[in-house]
Amino acid sequence: MTKYYLGIDLGGTKILTALADDRGAILGKRKIMTEANQGIANVLANIVHASQVVLDTSSLSFADIQRVGVGIPGWVDVEAGLVHHAPNLKWEQVPITRLLEAETGTPVVIENDANAAALGEWLWGAGKGACSLIYITVSTGIGGGIIIDGRLHRGKDCRAGEIGHMIIDPKGSRCSCGNNGCLEALSSGTAIANRGKEVVEERRPSILIDFCQGDSSKVTAALVSRAAQEGDHVAQEILTTAGYYLGIGLANLVNLLSPEKIILGGGVMKAGDLILESTKCTLQDITKASSLGSSVEICKAALGDESGVVGALMVARNRLPDDNFHIP
Amino acid sequence: MTKYYLGIDLGGTKILTALADDRGAILGKRKIMTEANQGIANVLANIVHASQVVLDTSSLSFADIQRVGVGIPGWVDVEAGLVHHAPNLKWEQVPITRLLEAETGTPVVIENDANAAALGEWLWGAGKGACSLIYITVSTGIGGGIIIDGRLHRGKDCRAGEIGHMIIDPKGSRCSCGNNGCLEALSSGTAIANRGKEVVEERRPSILIDFCQGDSSKVTAALVSRAAQEGDHVAQEILTTAGYYLGIGLANLVNLLSPEKIILGGGVMKAGDLILESTKCTLQDITKASSLGSSVEICKAALGDESGVVGALMVARNRLPDDNFHIP
Repeated sequence: MTKYYLGIDLGGTKILTALADDRGAILGKRKIMTEANQGIANVLANIVHASQVVLDTSSLSFADIQRVGVGIPGWVDVEAGLVHHAPNLKWEQVPITRLLEAETGTPVVIENDANAAALGEWLWGAGKGACSLIYITVSTGIGGGIIIDGRLHRGKDCRAGEIGHMIIDPKGSRCSCGNNGCLEALSSGTAIANRGKEVVEERRPSILIDFCQGDSSKVTAALVSRAAQEGDHVAQEILTTAGYYLGIGLANLVNLLSPEKIILGGGVMKAGDLILESTKCTLQDITKASSLGSSVEICKAALGDESGVVGALMVARNRLPDDNFHIP
Repeated sequence: MTKYYLGIDLGGTKILTALADDRGAILGKRKIMTEANQGIANVLANIVHASQVVLDTSSLSFADIQRVGVGIPGWVDVEAGLVHHAPNLKWEQVPITRLLEAETGTPVVIENDANAAALGEWLWGAGKGACSLIYITVSTGIGGGIIIDGRLHRGKDCRAGEIGHMIIDPKGSRCSCGNNGCLEALSSGTAIANRGKEVVEERRPSILIDFCQGDSSKVTAALVSRAAQEGDHVAQEILTTAGYYLGIGLANLVNLLSPEKIILGGGVMKAGDLILESTKCTLQDITKASSLGSSVEICKAALGDESGVVGALMVARNRLPDDNFHIP
């Protein structure tokens, strides 16, 4: 009898749900809004609703599902099925597994979202076949997942992978965590937007000023990328600088862990190749003496927005990611 | 029949040799000069000589030895028994295993010296019982070894653990590797000595000037430590700053890997507690929001100068460190 699994990528803004069979074929997907500000019960109802829609499309019900895997944007205890802290959902100590099992009547397993995305890319995406890799998502913030010796490295209390809070310039921009010069404060979408806002406020010659009609609060990372693509030197410099710091971050990871691959995902990496080129160039420059930068493969995520939900399916399929993964 | 093992910690300056039986009892030790500048053959002869001395003391010969483990200060291929690059020995592509096996008639296995020290501390020292730990040696340079999920993490091509070349201030002091602001350029013994030299050259009010009779070239990290211990504020500031950067390095490691323990060894850590206090204080300060700094135990190496040779014995005992370790 065919077994079915549900994967859920629970984001601060959107929920992406996917249904797969045990051969790894994805049978249906559904994206809806999270509506986190309307409370936990509402988010749970949205998860159940989105799942029901994909199940209906395949004429299935929760009773046909072996397990539901959920990627959570925060600090989770995978064993206890508990969300300790998920700032984008405004969740503290939420026993998500128990709550969702009560709603669906189906076993639920959870994983940190960046870890899930790392698993997705490792098993189905750009990381196929690698024994060790680091997945980095560069988006509003910067997060990561680390695969070492063929296993997800969660670290003590499931807290490893906070790549965005690696400090690489203690006198650099302020980070949301309260420290200065974290990678997230230098290379994330938020960092790019903030630098764009400064440029507008400083009245530097840039089409960004036209794009936002002189209103710096309207500047986003996407707007900076568009300006850069249209040849604006100031915007290009912002992206090159973000890539420079990301390159330092990658060099640090390579020196520490010497992974086979580093996979870059997230919205910022999709906005043209200027950042990626600057990142690679910095990495090569820093590691030229040791040639370490040449031994690691730097690539873009292959699954795009779906790394996380595919990873959530992997988690569902294998109960705990330390088990063997069978889906090709 | 009792089995015997030889461990050799091959340093740029000294060779430390130890003999142990298979219950882990150390039967003898010998330290001699490396004399690396007199060439490879001479270094090999010194290793054999030191080994012979400890064997003689126990009325044993190389024929009684199951295996020799050697910790090497450089980039090694543990499978091929090859030293790719060991700058302090001025070795390039030296097939050390083959050469030493020819000299001793005994199987030889090698490991990077910081990895060996990490194994030593993990299995016999401050890291006993930990599932994951990071060992850092703060000496002339800064190196490290990473134990994850009960295994030494060597990384691709055995190149992981280059903790000293994590960049934490791209506008900071120049490192020997050619980059700026590596941890090694900010917190090592060399960094402390260099800052001490600058202080003397700047004629800042410090007893360092008396200690070196105004000759900045005579300033060493040990001299700075002595001045700090005697209450010299300028020297204390140098050590506190070195500890501050080391604390940033530790915070980065904790955010990335969330190890159970971080073990600090090397000569610099033995020179009073000022650096360690500053390091811990910075770590707590950086991680106060996440409380991650409280979940990791920071401790000094328990085996002192012998972490490396004990690790070399572990390597000898277990052929490859991925095998099970039995010595208590």
